[in-house]
Amino acid sequence: MTDKLTETERAEQLAPLLAAGWTEAEDRDAISKTFEFKNFVEAFGFMTRAALWAEKLNHHPEWFNVYKTVEVTLSTHDAGGLSALDIKMASKMDELA
Amino acid sequence: MTDKLTETERAEQLAPLLAAGWTEAEDRDAISKTFEFKNFVEAFGFMTRAALWAEKLNHHPEWFNVYKTVEVTLSTHDAGGLSALDIKMASKMDELA
Repeated sequence: MTDKLTETERAEQLAPLLAAGWTEAEDRDAISKTFEFKNFVEAFGFMTRAALWAEKLNHHPEWFNVYKTVEVTLSTHDAGGLSALDIKMASKMDELA
Repeated sequence: MTDKLTETERAEQLAPLLAAGWTEAEDRDAISKTFEFKNFVEAFGFMTRAALWAEKLNHHPEWFNVYKTVEVTLSTHDAGGLSALDIKMASKMDELA
């Protein structure tokens, strides 16, 4: 689960996420997305739901929040780049947002 | 409450925060602190408690979290710099951490 994605897996599994607004980082093997909500309560509500999933999957995001904006970056430190866990977490976050 | 601190208020009220590990930003009128916890559950637990206070005070932090680390920056947009709300929020966060 924490092996770095192969080129084939990467191409297949990243495509739907890139179509959904995720972007590949330029300086490292990671994906990022900025989520915008109505207000802080909605933004932090999203973070709380995502935090429970992060802990459950034992895979934690890097994220920045100011008021109604949440900027998320996902990468797998142990794998030295994107793994299936990042794909799973990204999809889950889209579902929760 | 959202007026920018005067020089005197600033000197008086910032001192205890600077002694407690807050630092003044170099590029803007803001204060920052990095909180370290045991793990993600502790870090996000802190963020949740702080989020409830932020909403109650209607004063929201800029914060970045990765695993057990939470980097907080406080400033008052409406005041164009540090106000009494930032001092209050910083003290509350220290109390909650």
